Amino acid sequence: MRLRKVKDALLKLNNSRYFIADPASLKGNWRSLFNNNNPIHIEIGCGKGKFISELASINKDVNYIAIEKFDSVLLRTAEKLEEMDLDNLKIVLIDADKLTDYFAEKEIDLIYINFSDPWPKYGHRKRRLTYKTFLDSYKFILKDDGAVFQKTDNRKLFEFSLESFNENNWLISNISLDLHKDTETFNITTEFEEKWSKLGPIYRLEARKRV
Amino acid sequence: MRLRKVKDALLKLNNSRYFIADPASLKGNWRSLFNNNNPIHIEIGCGKGKFISELASINKDVNYIAIEKFDSVLLRTAEKLEEMDLDNLKIVLIDADKLTDYFAEKEIDLIYINFSDPWPKYGHRKRRLTYKTFLDSYKFILKDDGAVFQKTDNRKLFEFSLESFNENNWLISNISLDLHKDTETFNITTEFEEKWSKLGPIYRLEARKRV
Repeated sequence: MRLRKVKDALLKLNNSRYFIADPASLKGNWRSLFNNNNPIHIEIGCGKGKFISELASINKDVNYIAIEKFDSVLLRTAEKLEEMDLDNLKIVLIDADKLTDYFAEKEIDLIYINFSDPWPKYGHRKRRLTYKTFLDSYKFILKDDGAVFQKTDNRKLFEFSLESFNENNWLISNISLDLHKDTETFNITTEFEEKWSKLGPIYRLEARKRV
Repeated sequence: MRLRKVKDALLKLNNSRYFIADPASLKGNWRSLFNNNNPIHIEIGCGKGKFISELASINKDVNYIAIEKFDSVLLRTAEKLEEMDLDNLKIVLIDADKLTDYFAEKEIDLIYINFSDPWPKYGHRKRRLTYKTFLDSYKFILKDDGAVFQKTDNRKLFEFSLESFNENNWLISNISLDLHKDTETFNITTEFEEKWSKLGPIYRLEARKRV
């Protein structure tokens, strides 16, 4: 998600009680930060934070980390959170291609990827969050029974993701090629999804490590 | 595909020069029937035969076998073929769950599955042509670099098929979640596809044995 650049966004983020300024220092020790042994779920590219803040409100027995690489975007999440009181959610400014600098092996239980940039050009395919190099880092930080939950409205990204998970030996389940018609599925929406889903189907999948 | 039952359909099929009355006797010897060493492609559930007869007209260097389990349906294919002159196509009355009775190990190069019955009820899932038991028989009769090409307009069948191929260790490629929008893809249509594709997307995939 791109937003107009906010002046001094990082300074403002540092004033948020949800913001972790030095996430690398917590590698291997995230549970001690939350002060419990609950599972840790992360969202890569949290946007304005609607999705993960709703999840954190509902599931008090799960710790959440919202990851975003643009400070101006993450600031919107921080602002939304000021009105809430959540002990089980933290927000961090991290680039998704450096996850293993911030999380130890098998430290994470679940990864959400919602409406990530499709990078439609073939020359940019390595930037897609389901490219092999990303999947390898997810495999590393996920527990053995850990999973990636992906949603997107971008058909080409979803076709690519299905092939990439399959090729890299993930076990794919709960595929939906039209999520909003599968009403039996529990679904917390993102801002993006609410705005755009009437234009076409929302695709989703779950992928687990094969062990 | 279901059609009204035609009286004496099997008798009429026996009059077709395309019809192989005793396919089990050819197990392991299909190439000798065609009198060449060209690859053999089969279509499981050929319906009225539009798809496979067009393919056979175009690709003279491939041998085709059209498989159908309903004699009244296969008769429609036979009738269509009477107007054509094809040496590289035969038609057989075979139930898809007995493929290994008719084809030897690694005898087949490519399997087409077009718009097969989705068997939507969970209790009928074992009848879907991409259920594990079918995939195992495809693995057996396919060459090491052999493939299954599937098309369907049924979303639930396609979701199931993606998961089934993935779970059973096939390598999936060339997924399209809206085939007719992917105009770069060469596509010979079936009767069914021409009639119904405007109502929703056509899904397709290729799946190869992992060796």
